[in-house]
Amino acid sequence: MEAIEELALKPCTSSLYLRPFRLCYRQNGTKKFWDFMRTHDSVSILIFNTSRQCFVVVKQFRPAVYMCEVERQHPEVFQNQDKESFSRLEEPLPALVGVTYELCAGIVDKPDLSLEEIACGEVLEECGYRVPVTDLRRITSYRSGVGVTGSRQTLFYAEVTDQMRTGEGGGQPEEGELIEVVEIPLEDSMKFAYDETLPKTMGVIFSFMWFQNNIAPKLPKK
Amino acid sequence: MEAIEELALKPCTSSLYLRPFRLCYRQNGTKKFWDFMRTHDSVSILIFNTSRQCFVVVKQFRPAVYMCEVERQHPEVFQNQDKESFSRLEEPLPALVGVTYELCAGIVDKPDLSLEEIACGEVLEECGYRVPVTDLRRITSYRSGVGVTGSRQTLFYAEVTDQMRTGEGGGQPEEGELIEVVEIPLEDSMKFAYDETLPKTMGVIFSFMWFQNNIAPKLPKK
Repeated sequence: MEAIEELALKPCTSSLYLRPFRLCYRQNGTKKFWDFMRTHDSVSILIFNTSRQCFVVVKQFRPAVYMCEVERQHPEVFQNQDKESFSRLEEPLPALVGVTYELCAGIVDKPDLSLEEIACGEVLEECGYRVPVTDLRRITSYRSGVGVTGSRQTLFYAEVTDQMRTGEGGGQPEEGELIEVVEIPLEDSMKFAYDETLPKTMGVIFSFMWFQNNIAPKLPKK
Repeated sequence: MEAIEELALKPCTSSLYLRPFRLCYRQNGTKKFWDFMRTHDSVSILIFNTSRQCFVVVKQFRPAVYMCEVERQHPEVFQNQDKESFSRLEEPLPALVGVTYELCAGIVDKPDLSLEEIACGEVLEECGYRVPVTDLRRITSYRSGVGVTGSRQTLFYAEVTDQMRTGEGGGQPEEGELIEVVEIPLEDSMKFAYDETLPKTMGVIFSFMWFQNNIAPKLPKK
């Protein structure tokens, strides 16, 4: 499993990744403001491997999730932060508390590509399957956050076979991605979805249930 | 509908609401850092009114969603931002593009209250129904974000009747909340869930589907 070491934390005064803005406005006569962040829209893909009747999801260490658990157990870590220096986290929690199960996903940051093309790129990069763009089925779209980011996520469904696996997946290590590809057998999937001891996104639970309602009834009987 | 006027935008260098941090660490030998934000965990409640066989959801203007649409149509708005002054948005989009349908929800910021107590408080405050804590059914929990926030959301189900409505709901105007309570008839709910022209959170779609699978089959036949 993941080895996470030498943790240090500091307030972040400027970031290439977090772009905070303040919007001032008058709503129905009342002056208000709201602080929010600009982020990219995203795509997310439910992948089902028909050769082995399993879902293909990804698992990775998420610093934001990890620190959420650190704060739950050691709230003092976020208090009295010196703005200038990093404070070392002594005796940190095991990395496992920050590892989450997620659908294969990616941000929409290439204006010349369609959502479907970006989605297929992520399936190949993260999970190693080469899926034709025309094989993707659009499930729906929604707001992935409404308070802080407001960005839109579009969810797709892709059926794959073992023959379509042309690589290992795992993301782009040169961009710092360390992604583990995980297979969840169909027969265990709803138990997995509702097991709260396994940290996951709502997208995993939602899409597994969508599959049960929309795809499972049409699967060839074994 | 909402009147949104006098919009002005500036980069946000310090905020009571957004608390950005940077975590530095070594993962499997490689030095990395990740910028994230600390936010509160949250609760969210699927409310079904049995007297009128409808879901009770909320609708509100979300600045982050609105500005996401503004950027889609006027990307220049976020470029060349002067760090000091607000830039007025001329000819802004209609407020409607920033209005989203959401489940009744709230943040977990009262350490002496249980998740259930906080959830019942939100149901009363936002939607006007007085629900006993013991009537809440826990559906599940998940990570509401994994990249930026990492916080956990717990989803509950509450059945209400017209007799339990003791107020108008609408949130706390003194805290700037302007929330509209909306009823979605059960028979229209799945069409509503998948209508992408009506902006909504994944929680709405997921919980409506959960209801169809888990509650609808047991409803008394009309």
